[in-house]
Amino acid sequence: MDKNLLVLAGTGEISRRYAEGVAESLGLEIYNVENKVFPDGESYIRIPELPDNNILYIQNLDPPQDKRLWEALLALDKLRSQGYNVILVTPYLAYSRQDKEFLKGEAVSVALLLRLLRSLGAEEFYTIEIHKMDSLRHFAGRAISLDPYPYMAGVLADKLPHPSDVLVLSPDLGAIDRARRFADAFGSEFDYIVKRRDRVTGEVYMEPKEIPARGRSIIIVDDIISTGGTMAKAARMLLEQGATDVYAVAAHGLLVGGAVDKLRNSGVKRIFVGDTLPPKEGVDQVELYPVVAREFEWVNQHGAS
Amino acid sequence: MDKNLLVLAGTGEISRRYAEGVAESLGLEIYNVENKVFPDGESYIRIPELPDNNILYIQNLDPPQDKRLWEALLALDKLRSQGYNVILVTPYLAYSRQDKEFLKGEAVSVALLLRLLRSLGAEEFYTIEIHKMDSLRHFAGRAISLDPYPYMAGVLADKLPHPSDVLVLSPDLGAIDRARRFADAFGSEFDYIVKRRDRVTGEVYMEPKEIPARGRSIIIVDDIISTGGTMAKAARMLLEQGATDVYAVAAHGLLVGGAVDKLRNSGVKRIFVGDTLPPKEGVDQVELYPVVAREFEWVNQHGAS
Repeated sequence: MDKNLLVLAGTGEISRRYAEGVAESLGLEIYNVENKVFPDGESYIRIPELPDNNILYIQNLDPPQDKRLWEALLALDKLRSQGYNVILVTPYLAYSRQDKEFLKGEAVSVALLLRLLRSLGAEEFYTIEIHKMDSLRHFAGRAISLDPYPYMAGVLADKLPHPSDVLVLSPDLGAIDRARRFADAFGSEFDYIVKRRDRVTGEVYMEPKEIPARGRSIIIVDDIISTGGTMAKAARMLLEQGATDVYAVAAHGLLVGGAVDKLRNSGVKRIFVGDTLPPKEGVDQVELYPVVAREFEWVNQHGAS
Repeated sequence: MDKNLLVLAGTGEISRRYAEGVAESLGLEIYNVENKVFPDGESYIRIPELPDNNILYIQNLDPPQDKRLWEALLALDKLRSQGYNVILVTPYLAYSRQDKEFLKGEAVSVALLLRLLRSLGAEEFYTIEIHKMDSLRHFAGRAISLDPYPYMAGVLADKLPHPSDVLVLSPDLGAIDRARRFADAFGSEFDYIVKRRDRVTGEVYMEPKEIPARGRSIIIVDDIISTGGTMAKAARMLLEQGATDVYAVAAHGLLVGGAVDKLRNSGVKRIFVGDTLPPKEGVDQVELYPVVAREFEWVNQHGAS
């Protein structure tokens, strides 16, 4: 693939927003996938004529996920049949939590999804913060999960307490790398949350492994907030343990099933998420298109068009 | 594939209804694809343990089409990975009207859909009345469009006027074979509707090509009623031309955008459609699972299990 790229915005508002942000930061031309929905609910996809063969196709998979996914497959298949080379960017990758056959016979949705995106013509694949890095192996080509946390730490610097007062926590040991990356950029300490069962009462406590919460501003960093249940429980306990305040930070904010209220009621002071999913009242979104654009800076650095 | 088959019901009520009808008529065991939808809208699919390798998997593609389609792809992929041989039955095939690149760059949805169903593991494919027979070539294997019209003619015999009073019409010459098949089974004459422009007023008239509508009960037979626009217009004109009454018959009744009211207001006396899509008030559905079951009668005739 040579250095000339153009940006093709996929369907849905978030795809278009990312496409515009990326195209503008990189000084690339932008085109739109033509799309409509017929009265019966079927999607229509048309690829406009494009003046270059190398396409940065940005298609988000926010809800309705299955419609967006089908639109992506239709567009990829058409692009390939017309001879275009396609780099696919999917800021939010739906189905990334269905990454394992937990029970025999379960469909591993993320595996099929990535296989199809590849086999229908995506030559490279970029997403923001995939739930499990290991899932990327299902895409038989260059596949990258972009790290949004250092960038978010920078953007949020003036909206959060002073780094020296902050303890960044991951909800468990498995996710500690996210907390570490955020904390390193933010300039604060980090730790992870452990569950301990009280020997007398039998109750389960959640607390930081090494660094006590008392007197600290806690930032819990996770990849995705869905129903917010675990994060709400953790927040409540950390406040009981004397934390000054608790903030929630995540790359993706699904926030379904009353998650925002749940988090607020458990004492979470502010919720910060990326803008890979539709905005929710009471939640601050951080624009993450610069995390995507940065990855393609070579387009400008190495010249052309 | 040997003669032992079991029926696997896919997702959605219509899939299950067809699966039950087919399993019962053929005396086959029935199993269900396990399915749920997470709070964020993602589908979960699990294939239960099945006691035989040969599966008649019935998955309808009624709205929400894209969700049903994705569920079908997940199930097929899983079934294949588990070594099952799968015959896929899709009573209503979504996207069958997107069968051509009318404008350059348009996705030919039915082509990709059938290619995917095949490549993910369906060895044979059956649907009821595909919009265009030619589309079946995109499925690189045995692919059958089942003819529901003779069966519907039989079922509707006591709900329609006497065959000798009836003229069966297709909306145009291209669709005349549907009208012919219905009329032959019903025992009445058939013709097709032509459009003629009045030389003086410039208005467009629709009328039967050969047999005048006057004094006849008209049955308009089509594959699918979507918004009902053309059929409503035809009904109004046929009544103006002296038709006794007008009935509408179709394999698939999408009936979106106020189609039922439109047809009723134009004078259509009754609307009969297959049960491949959700029922609508004011519309009579004909159960079509026997049309599917009949195709697999060899299972019982040639013995086994």
